[in-house]
Amino acid sequence: MKFSPLIDELIDAFKVLPGVGPKSAQRMAFQLLERNRSGALKLSQILHDAMEHVQHCGSCRTFTEAEICEICSSAKRAESRQLCVVESPQDIVAIEQTAEFKGRYFVLMGHLSPIDGIGPNEIGLHILDKRLASNAYDEVILATNPTVEGEATAHYIAQMCKSYDLQATRIAHGVPVGGELEYIDGNTLSHAFSGRRSL
Amino acid sequence: MKFSPLIDELIDAFKVLPGVGPKSAQRMAFQLLERNRSGALKLSQILHDAMEHVQHCGSCRTFTEAEICEICSSAKRAESRQLCVVESPQDIVAIEQTAEFKGRYFVLMGHLSPIDGIGPNEIGLHILDKRLASNAYDEVILATNPTVEGEATAHYIAQMCKSYDLQATRIAHGVPVGGELEYIDGNTLSHAFSGRRSL
Repeated sequence: MKFSPLIDELIDAFKVLPGVGPKSAQRMAFQLLERNRSGALKLSQILHDAMEHVQHCGSCRTFTEAEICEICSSAKRAESRQLCVVESPQDIVAIEQTAEFKGRYFVLMGHLSPIDGIGPNEIGLHILDKRLASNAYDEVILATNPTVEGEATAHYIAQMCKSYDLQATRIAHGVPVGGELEYIDGNTLSHAFSGRRSL
Repeated sequence: MKFSPLIDELIDAFKVLPGVGPKSAQRMAFQLLERNRSGALKLSQILHDAMEHVQHCGSCRTFTEAEICEICSSAKRAESRQLCVVESPQDIVAIEQTAEFKGRYFVLMGHLSPIDGIGPNEIGLHILDKRLASNAYDEVILATNPTVEGEATAHYIAQMCKSYDLQATRIAHGVPVGGELEYIDGNTLSHAFSGRRSL
């Protein structure tokens, strides 16, 4: 025991947070005790509510406390007949910020990784299969991460689309805007060359 | 709104933690939702308990959920008749780890800082005054931080000790063990010279 039992427990509990070790946990505990008890009580309450009520959207699998998330329940988002497949809910936010895409999403909550025991069912591809079969889409945009697992997952889903005669597209890989060619890795550069477009 | 209202609230609530900005808060929220709901519920519960029950020790002002903290309630710690004055509860832990000091503590929970409106009463010197008057101590060790405010606070308490004819000592300033002279600042070096001891 270093402090009183309750304070020790609090410091220990903070270590569930990503990137928080013993020293940061101690700092968090004392900062809240000294300066912001009302903020801490509010955090405690919301943390409890969120863990109890946030579930997966029944349609796209993103996190939401509603049965069906806002995007899936908006009729307007169905008009484009496009479905964008992403790995995580955070990816939806990133894509929404571009205001480029007006269709619906499907969130895998991960990627295929047989070595970790993550197969098609673990990333909800049986649910995606039903949505592809619903004849609600003309195009499936595969926006998984440009990693080995992300590429494999995109390839797998593209095969699924084929059986429903759906067009599957992959987001472009290439040089990031504002980047300098000199510092771009060779793999990205060859993607940029093979994906070149006429002006 | 970026995610669902409850998730947005959760991300916002995490920002009360020191060193946590929007991106880390988002990472924490999703990590807990995806991977560790039981840990998050436990954190929520302990956070609530700690904020409700942790108060200041009636004797030394450190944080504890008991009326009187463990060190203050141990009769053995009174035997040395030494009182160590520190700025924060974390300082107690650092000193306890050395196993050098066997007396009792007094925690200021800060230091004198008139510019921020922190005077003697804000750091509990009226409580310290009563303890000094109790005739329970022979020596008061001033272990405030070696900063301008810490030095001023130590000086102020030393004056208080004088009126009770108590010996006040200040922890030594000098070259840290394992440090290299070359990289020590001049102020510390002059303290190290003026505080030299014969071997």
